Amino acid sequence: MKNFVVHQLLYHAVITHPGQVIVSDGKQFTFQQFYTRIIKLADSLSHKGVKKGTVIGVLDVNTHRFLEMHYACSMLGAVLHTINFRLAPEQMVYSMVHAGDEWVFVSDVFAPAIKPLFSKFPNWVLMSDNRRQALPDAQNAFHYENLLEQGEEKEPSGANEISENDIFSIFYTTGTTGKPKGIRYKHRTILHGAIQLFHHLALHKYGARVSSRDVFMPLIPFFHIHAWGMAFFPIYLGSKLVLPGSADATGQLVLIKKEKVSWLNMVPTQLQMLLNQKGFGNIKVLTGGSPFASGIAQRAQREGVNFSLIYGGSDQLATAISVIPEEVEPDTDEALEWRRVGMRPLPLVEISVRDNQGHEVPHDGETLGAVWVRSPWLPEGYYKEPEISKKQFIDGWFRTGDLGFFYPNNLLYVADREGDAIKSGGEWIPSGMLEAIISEHPAVAQVAVIPKKDEHWGQRPLAIVKVSEKVSPKELTDFLIIKTKEGKLARFWIPDQFVFVDDIPLTSAGKLNKKVLRDQYSEIK
Amino acid sequence: MKNFVVHQLLYHAVITHPGQVIVSDGKQFTFQQFYTRIIKLADSLSHKGVKKGTVIGVLDVNTHRFLEMHYACSMLGAVLHTINFRLAPEQMVYSMVHAGDEWVFVSDVFAPAIKPLFSKFPNWVLMSDNRRQALPDAQNAFHYENLLEQGEEKEPSGANEISENDIFSIFYTTGTTGKPKGIRYKHRTILHGAIQLFHHLALHKYGARVSSRDVFMPLIPFFHIHAWGMAFFPIYLGSKLVLPGSADATGQLVLIKKEKVSWLNMVPTQLQMLLNQKGFGNIKVLTGGSPFASGIAQRAQREGVNFSLIYGGSDQLATAISVIPEEVEPDTDEALEWRRVGMRPLPLVEISVRDNQGHEVPHDGETLGAVWVRSPWLPEGYYKEPEISKKQFIDGWFRTGDLGFFYPNNLLYVADREGDAIKSGGEWIPSGMLEAIISEHPAVAQVAVIPKKDEHWGQRPLAIVKVSEKVSPKELTDFLIIKTKEGKLARFWIPDQFVFVDDIPLTSAGKLNKKVLRDQYSEIK
Repeated sequence: MKNFVVHQLLYHAVITHPGQVIVSDGKQFTFQQFYTRIIKLADSLSHKGVKKGTVIGVLDVNTHRFLEMHYACSMLGAVLHTINFRLAPEQMVYSMVHAGDEWVFVSDVFAPAIKPLFSKFPNWVLMSDNRRQALPDAQNAFHYENLLEQGEEKEPSGANEISENDIFSIFYTTGTTGKPKGIRYKHRTILHGAIQLFHHLALHKYGARVSSRDVFMPLIPFFHIHAWGMAFFPIYLGSKLVLPGSADATGQLVLIKKEKVSWLNMVPTQLQMLLNQKGFGNIKVLTGGSPFASGIAQRAQREGVNFSLIYGGSDQLATAISVIPEEVEPDTDEALEWRRVGMRPLPLVEISVRDNQGHEVPHDGETLGAVWVRSPWLPEGYYKEPEISKKQFIDGWFRTGDLGFFYPNNLLYVADREGDAIKSGGEWIPSGMLEAIISEHPAVAQVAVIPKKDEHWGQRPLAIVKVSEKVSPKELTDFLIIKTKEGKLARFWIPDQFVFVDDIPLTSAGKLNKKVLRDQYSEIK
Repeated sequence: MKNFVVHQLLYHAVITHPGQVIVSDGKQFTFQQFYTRIIKLADSLSHKGVKKGTVIGVLDVNTHRFLEMHYACSMLGAVLHTINFRLAPEQMVYSMVHAGDEWVFVSDVFAPAIKPLFSKFPNWVLMSDNRRQALPDAQNAFHYENLLEQGEEKEPSGANEISENDIFSIFYTTGTTGKPKGIRYKHRTILHGAIQLFHHLALHKYGARVSSRDVFMPLIPFFHIHAWGMAFFPIYLGSKLVLPGSADATGQLVLIKKEKVSWLNMVPTQLQMLLNQKGFGNIKVLTGGSPFASGIAQRAQREGVNFSLIYGGSDQLATAISVIPEEVEPDTDEALEWRRVGMRPLPLVEISVRDNQGHEVPHDGETLGAVWVRSPWLPEGYYKEPEISKKQFIDGWFRTGDLGFFYPNNLLYVADREGDAIKSGGEWIPSGMLEAIISEHPAVAQVAVIPKKDEHWGQRPLAIVKVSEKVSPKELTDFLIIKTKEGKLARFWIPDQFVFVDDIPLTSAGKLNKKVLRDQYSEIK
């Protein structure tokens, strides 16, 4: 019997689909070549002292080298620290020290920016095809391709002994408040989370259905939950995988056309950018991570983008996907709307929406509560943070920090982060939901709603708007008044004030950075 | 965190699809009602002394009561012995004593036939709607519905403590040679096997693709690997489930039409019977367990039966499904043929075909060898049979006892049971493959090929034929000579002798009973 161990996926890929390819950096690797590179790399690293438990940081965009590191670390039992390159520099260093990185693998793109770190960690590897590029000025430094060449074509002796309960990787969340928090994933946890998600997408006819003949391209970076599991699933399935490296939206579209990509994952912001590219469409997209405006949904629909939304996160993994309820006709506006807002828990996942007393709120389509989840692939807490863990991981459940409600048909709407909702006169205004409605106005490119202190109401909503064409606060207010008549929002949700900006700051996960906005605007007059 | 425990599936079903239905015995139960019945039954049983580890035998066709027993046993930690009702009576008793059955649940259909057993086991439950039917004359005997009614609507206190590594069920294989052998399934083993199988079917566009909108009806009995996992998957998915009870092919077709069944599983013999029913078609079918004649495949195709073949068994669970290779056009005869013969290992499953020295044979589409499998859901051996287990479960691999070969595209063909192949002049003749070719003759309804002793060649093939219209040995031989010219078989495979019979004996799993045939015919003159 073999268990759920990451590099176990390789055997299937190599035996069953040896000629299938991974496209990366203008090159193409068959699964057989990919496997050979991995075992050579692993063998070489084991001779340099990497062993079970060694923590290895990797700082790279989505390339074949980063993917190889996944499987080489798995075979060695090393812990892969997928460094969050969107963290602020001091947070990044914090995460590397906290995780205990003994090795750092850095791509040539990122190397110049992190020069000050070279002396802080003993072993560095430069990931580049150019072997004459200067190595990091550190205790030990190697070229990735040289290391790989030095390895023999044989699996590390311990590869067969890795258990599904060993730690595979560690990741640090954005930490918009306080320090980044580390989450360690066991082999079985990360594999079950990924496999269940993609398998479940395959069961639904509509949306980002995956199939064995898809060509996959992850636009979610590997550092973020291993590109939402994309580091595993195409290998598991034996499908073609296209890695975008540091391509921008234009470059991504070129790759999509050239390699016949049929399936992508990305955050809504990336989808918006791709929709702005002429010729993007007729493709499947898994998106999520922020509220998804119905304007984008409609535009996506028009361009033949079959999308599904995912609900999850690095501290809970995948827990729900959007679906069309059985009773709704698939090709209708109503169905489109459900795919935007109606999340169904994956099988084996339990989701509970609770009031302040811990009681389940009624499934009435409006009563907001705190979203709790429980699943077989829930991580066990934050690394070396017992106090914070105890507050969020309780009796096998995880308190997500999200606010949401259940519709009467038992689909979940995730409305907001608990910290982001606005408490006005004792009533919650979910900022995410309000943002989605405001962004339906054609002049609005992006919007963030944050609480503003108010003597009378406690808090009132303030909308920070990036426009695509000129629009006045009055016009936006009038637009929202119409929406209140359509039952989309309550009158008291309408922001008291609109601030127009050139750009809205985003977090490392591509979400609106509300912390920065609150610091800047919440006391605005 | 929750783990992979059978009754965990219920929470999802009840929370997400409370109104979905199970149709059984002319009645309809919502998932909510089904759940309520289960917890009442479990509560009642716990008051009668059923506890973790209690072994409970169930002897029934596919009904809601048998299904309820799956989940009630799971909550109690009791071991569900799915009694193989196609075993010979003395083998059935052997299995019940060997498993240690403390309780026996028997349906009213089976009760009369097993009267002699009533005194052998202490606790009996009669599964019937008719509460006035006489109870088994045993130490303790109860009506199922009375037991259920006595229970309170609360889950057994220990339900939350059941671990994925606890034993969920036990099953005894046919044992065409020797005693039946027991295989115990852990919760995680049986769930992973089932979930991986059905999920994988969802990933393929052709064949018995499952989707969230299917209506499922298992024609494989629950006793046999829990209807190949059908006791779990529709609940897991929240889909409508139709249970056929003891309906024959005519009754099954009525149910299919009435309940809009879209997905079935069955052995090829059952498929043949259904294809004989007027109006059967436009449906998805998972089949397997015996070689599948191309004549049936073509007939199925004509009737719009989208089929897939599965390779697996009670001692290895699901390991492969038939697919259309990527390089083959889907709607062609070639694609149809691949779906009949070309098995792809499920992801995470390794399959190795080995010669007598244990070396992997070349993937050349003809070199036969012994089929070995390894997977995360492989059972650990035979219950209380360490010696037999040691011979078949080696280094984490299972020696299946099947003969097969790999095509150059890495698809597996399972040709025969090792014991059934014929060794003629030192060369193997796979009887299953030969049967599939002979059965392409329009006059052949069913055929079994067994070895006949031969002074010169050691063994020679003997064909035992059930005809649908008159045909002579000469005509069959001529037909096979044409097939040799088409490259379908070697000249020396052609049987020396054809015996015509009215009926061919089958095993409990619906396969040709070669043991009986060999006893009867192998020394025939």
